[in-house]
Amino acid sequence: MTGASAHDCDQGRWDQGRDRGQNRDGVQDLNRGGGYQGPNRGEDQYVVGMDFGTLSARALVVRTADGTPAGTAIHQYAHQVMDTELAATGEPLPPDWALQDPEDYREALRTAVPAAIRDAGIRPEQVVGIGTDFTASTVLPVLADGTPLCQLDGLKGNKHAYVKLWKHHAAQPHADRINELARVRGEPWLPRYGGKISSEWQFAKALQLLDEAPELYRRAERWIEAADWIIWQLAGHETRNACTAGYKGIRQDGKYPSREFLAALDPRFETFAAGKLDHPVSALGSRAGSLTAQAAGWTGLPEGIAVAVGNVDAHVTAPAAGAIRPGQMVAITGTSTCHVMNSPALAEVPGMCGVVDGGIVGGLWGYEAGQSAVGDIFAAFVDHSVPAGYFDEASKRGVSVHDVLSGHALRHPAGASGLIALDWLGGNRSVLVDHHLSGAIVGLTLASTAPEIYRALVEATAFGTRVIIEAFNSAGVDVAELIMAGGLLRNELFMQVYADVMRRPLGVIGTDQGPALGSAIHAAVAAGLYPDVPEAAAAMGIMHRDVFRPDPVSADVYDELYAQYVRLHDYFGRGGNEVMHQLRDLRDRVLAGQPESSNR
Amino acid sequence: MTGASAHDCDQGRWDQGRDRGQNRDGVQDLNRGGGYQGPNRGEDQYVVGMDFGTLSARALVVRTADGTPAGTAIHQYAHQVMDTELAATGEPLPPDWALQDPEDYREALRTAVPAAIRDAGIRPEQVVGIGTDFTASTVLPVLADGTPLCQLDGLKGNKHAYVKLWKHHAAQPHADRINELARVRGEPWLPRYGGKISSEWQFAKALQLLDEAPELYRRAERWIEAADWIIWQLAGHETRNACTAGYKGIRQDGKYPSREFLAALDPRFETFAAGKLDHPVSALGSRAGSLTAQAAGWTGLPEGIAVAVGNVDAHVTAPAAGAIRPGQMVAITGTSTCHVMNSPALAEVPGMCGVVDGGIVGGLWGYEAGQSAVGDIFAAFVDHSVPAGYFDEASKRGVSVHDVLSGHALRHPAGASGLIALDWLGGNRSVLVDHHLSGAIVGLTLASTAPEIYRALVEATAFGTRVIIEAFNSAGVDVAELIMAGGLLRNELFMQVYADVMRRPLGVIGTDQGPALGSAIHAAVAAGLYPDVPEAAAAMGIMHRDVFRPDPVSADVYDELYAQYVRLHDYFGRGGNEVMHQLRDLRDRVLAGQPESSNR
Repeated sequence: MTGASAHDCDQGRWDQGRDRGQNRDGVQDLNRGGGYQGPNRGEDQYVVGMDFGTLSARALVVRTADGTPAGTAIHQYAHQVMDTELAATGEPLPPDWALQDPEDYREALRTAVPAAIRDAGIRPEQVVGIGTDFTASTVLPVLADGTPLCQLDGLKGNKHAYVKLWKHHAAQPHADRINELARVRGEPWLPRYGGKISSEWQFAKALQLLDEAPELYRRAERWIEAADWIIWQLAGHETRNACTAGYKGIRQDGKYPSREFLAALDPRFETFAAGKLDHPVSALGSRAGSLTAQAAGWTGLPEGIAVAVGNVDAHVTAPAAGAIRPGQMVAITGTSTCHVMNSPALAEVPGMCGVVDGGIVGGLWGYEAGQSAVGDIFAAFVDHSVPAGYFDEASKRGVSVHDVLSGHALRHPAGASGLIALDWLGGNRSVLVDHHLSGAIVGLTLASTAPEIYRALVEATAFGTRVIIEAFNSAGVDVAELIMAGGLLRNELFMQVYADVMRRPLGVIGTDQGPALGSAIHAAVAAGLYPDVPEAAAAMGIMHRDVFRPDPVSADVYDELYAQYVRLHDYFGRGGNEVMHQLRDLRDRVLAGQPESSNR
Repeated sequence: MTGASAHDCDQGRWDQGRDRGQNRDGVQDLNRGGGYQGPNRGEDQYVVGMDFGTLSARALVVRTADGTPAGTAIHQYAHQVMDTELAATGEPLPPDWALQDPEDYREALRTAVPAAIRDAGIRPEQVVGIGTDFTASTVLPVLADGTPLCQLDGLKGNKHAYVKLWKHHAAQPHADRINELARVRGEPWLPRYGGKISSEWQFAKALQLLDEAPELYRRAERWIEAADWIIWQLAGHETRNACTAGYKGIRQDGKYPSREFLAALDPRFETFAAGKLDHPVSALGSRAGSLTAQAAGWTGLPEGIAVAVGNVDAHVTAPAAGAIRPGQMVAITGTSTCHVMNSPALAEVPGMCGVVDGGIVGGLWGYEAGQSAVGDIFAAFVDHSVPAGYFDEASKRGVSVHDVLSGHALRHPAGASGLIALDWLGGNRSVLVDHHLSGAIVGLTLASTAPEIYRALVEATAFGTRVIIEAFNSAGVDVAELIMAGGLLRNELFMQVYADVMRRPLGVIGTDQGPALGSAIHAAVAAGLYPDVPEAAAAMGIMHRDVFRPDPVSADVYDELYAQYVRLHDYFGRGGNEVMHQLRDLRDRVLAGQPESSNR
């Protein structure tokens, strides 16, 4: 564990939080379940935060008083992501499919939790609660008792019986149908999602199930996020959390889309929400229940400790960074970037992914926005466009190729390459909400180098973030502060460019286990150690302020470049030139063997 | 020599030409000089064609009857290109300078010619003439007797005393002055050069000499193309050829720019043309004189044989391809592409490099157009943007990386990548005549591969050629046929894409020694073996017709992509969006340490 040093906090308020947390020894007794006895007098209390990612799950043991990490362990899923074939039968999967086996999640409880406890060197009885977060929308069909359909006799070979992972994109036609009908009918919930729901979400995937496997659709008594299903495994009964219900389930103002709307999509779909989704929704940080004897057996944790309601990896990171006040935008960077921020006010921000009441913390509107591809762009560039010399240098110096490219790029001032790029290599899911856009680079010369192009791509993603921030500001949801989290923190070029482009100092989350720490915070609240998530986040979250400060000269240069970016953004993205759509259309026609255009 | 197989001609007319050539045994006697005795009866006659390139000179021995190459040799210049320091002193050279040492050219006569004769296995007495071509405008200051200033005592250490190579670009400010004044005064010659003369040409480089080294300017009794200086070395007296005088010397309608114009540039420049340039201009293919005893000593060739007047590498390639009829455009591909074509009519084609009466062959208007960077783009891409895997594959298969990329790219149909590019990585010297434009790529995705981008760049250069062809057609100078020559013939992707984009079959020059063969053709005419260049080209030139035929499906796809190219071309190149100029301006300000823009 290297987390201890990351907890060298530079903020007075965190120390206050710690004191408050440490002085609350009596509080948790009020909330304890069952026959659980708890830690001995004088021993530290701990919670387990568990982050279910795409390829593995991580358990993190955290001291409740101040958020200090004590031990961790990772469990790799045996089936990883099934995107080429179904493991049980070897049946090839169609394009854009991505499945998981829910037993892998249970196995993570059985292996990672005990291992993390051992790593922490504490007694299991010192643990007072467990919280979890999950990828989303990762959703599965289950019986009324929570049994996944894929575990029923005769259904192990049916691909529709498995978990559809967030990045299962085969429900795009169904999302298109939902969006078009919602637009035509003027459904009031549509603007809450920036005007479009995603093919990744619960309704699109459920409609695909109905279309392609109606018998399985019928047998699915419940359609549930893995985020909630895992809680069912821990606490023994169904719950639904406010975050996935709102962002992934189209639940707004206390209700799902109407029966009329669903019937208009397909008469058999009329009762989908009422029959397979509807359930009281639990606030984030509330107690889903107590750890069952069975789950205690799996995890080695004491029976009866608090189980927090489910949550989502990105959203749970905000409290881990102690950044949940209105105006504090947390950018969770990785293959893509997710932006989350709270506000007391409801507004319609163009292109946002969603706004949900209590979607991040209770009592505030939680906003989510995103950029489809960020780290993915840099990874693709390294895969497809970087000569061997930079790899050799990385190998010699024992650093990553990203470090080498960043280092070279940082030797020259902003603007020195003469390059500018559009960061839509994975489409645009922010203000333009158009997955069929593509990337562009302008200003290439015979002397343009890989580090220069790499930097231009980094800058383009920063301009993309600035567009999002300006959209929030224009909609009256002011972004007062930007806090960075996720995997790209380690890239110095990335961070400095973002500070310069945003023309503001960047806060940085003080842990590389943001989601697991966020889950631990929710566990501490569920266990009653803190009255609410903000109090717990103040005590256990960790953020360094002003780690990267804007250089005024670079910021001036980037103001100029940003103006160019916006001009190209609007030209290619708002109909000035439809070349990106036409290129994609031509590509699709060519690949289908029908290059003739109907409109030539 | 592999040339013999390249001479497998598929055209009846070439065989006729050969017969005609072989039947001309008696003609050359009329033109022989001095005490030269010539070949024995029954022996084949030969000429030497000598191509002075940027880094080396090649001598090619060619049979006069049919153009069959018999032997060749290359001489690498000892000083190559001096672009970082002056060899004589080690003095660093300023940016954009590129010098050569004229003694390297004489050394090529002394080494390459005898070696080529030996390679041919013929007796030197079988050689009846020598012809040369040169890079241009490659120009030097000399005394009235032809002595280069750099060979005078006390001037060896003066950089201005050396040859300024074609790619010496430090006279751009002087070219700008000339163009601006010519525009303001409405000089009648300006439209003959597409509206702008180049910084590479004689007047710009001379004005730089006057500005920066007035004492050397004064001592330069003649300012002469290396193309003409080498003839002076061979024949013993000064000549000037119609090609460089017209294309590089602003000589139009029998005269240079007026004294008034030159005086308006600088009073000291008033007599530049009259004093340092003016000389009777010789038609291409005419006899400059006879080989002097001294040059016979250097080359091992018989004293008194014919020496053809100087010529330029690109222009001399047209007769080598047997493609000098009006409407036959020859594209000489390499680092850049030069297009040459004859027409009986004078027209003003936007962006052409120049139109010169007799500039390619006597009696026709010779048009030249060009693309600044073509092979340079592919080379820069291979240097800066291609991962190791493709190099490994090339190494394993024993082919070039270009072959590997082309092979991968050809596996997919036109339009399948969804990419389009603008080929201005070296600026645009065709219809836009704007060296400050830059390259662009649109349509990038996370899956875009190096072969796909490589292909998009190849396609972009093809679109650039199509723009030039359409400009000629629009100006009433119809391009009836496109014949490819130069180093990129070997790239199958390049050739097929050009056939498809141009929607016409491509002819291909039947030799990889086009310039040297062209020079040999001029030597044969100068030696009196043929009455004129067209007759000699018909007998000795070599071209295969219809080697690459357009695929109609690809051609349809490229019609669509070309429409997109033209739209982007005009948007970025004609003021729709000045981003390329603004990026360059920002870059220049940043690199000068003054990023503040005056107009922000």
